[in-house]
Amino acid sequence: MTTASNPGRLYGVGVGPGDPELLTVKAQRVLLAAPVIWVPQAGISAESYAYSIVKNIIDESRQEVVRAKFPTNDEEAAGEVWRNAARDLAAHLEAGKDVAFITEGDPMLYSTFAYVLETIQEEYPHLPVEVVPGVSSVMAAAASAAAPLVHHGQRLAILPAVYGIDDLREAIALYDTIVLMKVNRTLLDALANLERLGLAGRTIYVRRATTERERVVRNIQELSAEDLDYFSLLIIRR
Amino acid sequence: MTTASNPGRLYGVGVGPGDPELLTVKAQRVLLAAPVIWVPQAGISAESYAYSIVKNIIDESRQEVVRAKFPTNDEEAAGEVWRNAARDLAAHLEAGKDVAFITEGDPMLYSTFAYVLETIQEEYPHLPVEVVPGVSSVMAAAASAAAPLVHHGQRLAILPAVYGIDDLREAIALYDTIVLMKVNRTLLDALANLERLGLAGRTIYVRRATTERERVVRNIQELSAEDLDYFSLLIIRR
Repeated sequence: MTTASNPGRLYGVGVGPGDPELLTVKAQRVLLAAPVIWVPQAGISAESYAYSIVKNIIDESRQEVVRAKFPTNDEEAAGEVWRNAARDLAAHLEAGKDVAFITEGDPMLYSTFAYVLETIQEEYPHLPVEVVPGVSSVMAAAASAAAPLVHHGQRLAILPAVYGIDDLREAIALYDTIVLMKVNRTLLDALANLERLGLAGRTIYVRRATTERERVVRNIQELSAEDLDYFSLLIIRR
Repeated sequence: MTTASNPGRLYGVGVGPGDPELLTVKAQRVLLAAPVIWVPQAGISAESYAYSIVKNIIDESRQEVVRAKFPTNDEEAAGEVWRNAARDLAAHLEAGKDVAFITEGDPMLYSTFAYVLETIQEEYPHLPVEVVPGVSSVMAAAASAAAPLVHHGQRLAILPAVYGIDDLREAIALYDTIVLMKVNRTLLDALANLERLGLAGRTIYVRRATTERERVVRNIQELSAEDLDYFSLLIIRR
């Protein structure tokens, strides 16, 4: 998979939901060997969540850690941003260095890596890429709650947001289980309405599964403002 | 979490999609330490797929490997079957032994463990249970295809089966990406029809991701009868 000039390989590495023990053996191997660790970072946040998961196995005296600012919302995420990000990354690869791009959870599910990957595939198709899948926060949340997501034959919907009660009601009508990736006030109000109508099934809230700040709540009436966490999700089973 | 009589702990351990390097560090630790390894097995199959993934780290001279027959379809899966299975398992736990129940992929997603877990929770609520999440074949397939499943803000549906073209068309209308967990002839015919209508988007077939028998096909016209494999799936992106 290398070209004549032997470029480095880009690894998209899922580092799992939070517990460092939920890294895969392969992710550990790749992160120990890569000369360059690429850390996507929101401009404002002090430290990357993904990096906090792996920092104990990275040796900054030996490995180059590149903290790269990435957009955190869709408005910022113009093609230009990704092309610039990909260009910096490609320069390291062209210089023959392997780069491990870390993402919390899995790289193919709601990850910044997806945009970078697609830009690299388009603009630098000669550069070898390998994706190392990881444990998603969706599975980790279900594990922490000891609540199966779907049985054989059942349908699962994963939604990043819902837009009011009708939207949610439609998903509940068609799917056995729905995972709502971010918890906000509108969503909780919509859910409370559905519960009142007897349509919401069983709802479980999980915040930061597998970390020290993990919280599992089976009665969503108990949720407070501080539970509207970026790393929280809801599992709704019909 | 232990009772006065100190029962063992039941671990539901996801062993990932196939590549033994995609076990998590935690799964490895639990599997090395557990005195009893529980292997769900279809009656007819010679060896369990999950067991083939971990057999190199299990020591049958030191660990008890229980190969337990489990239903492979819904018709067989009466409550009686699960109660019997849970009773055997509970007997080992009550005797103070930890039991690691292995499942391919993740234990909360289309796994036999889900039924066993629910039966244990109902009938033996005093027995401690811990679920170790794993890399699902869904994420592994996307990784092998280097094809992101969903970007920020997009909706993902995971369907075990579809029932003809209308069913599929509805899912495609509402979701950005659909993962079809099993590939069958009806499904392929329905997809070919949708492609002809320009409604199917981009479809990628992935068989046994991360194993030696892995196959990624981006043109579904190329699929043959032997690709209708139990461990194959389709990723459809709108």
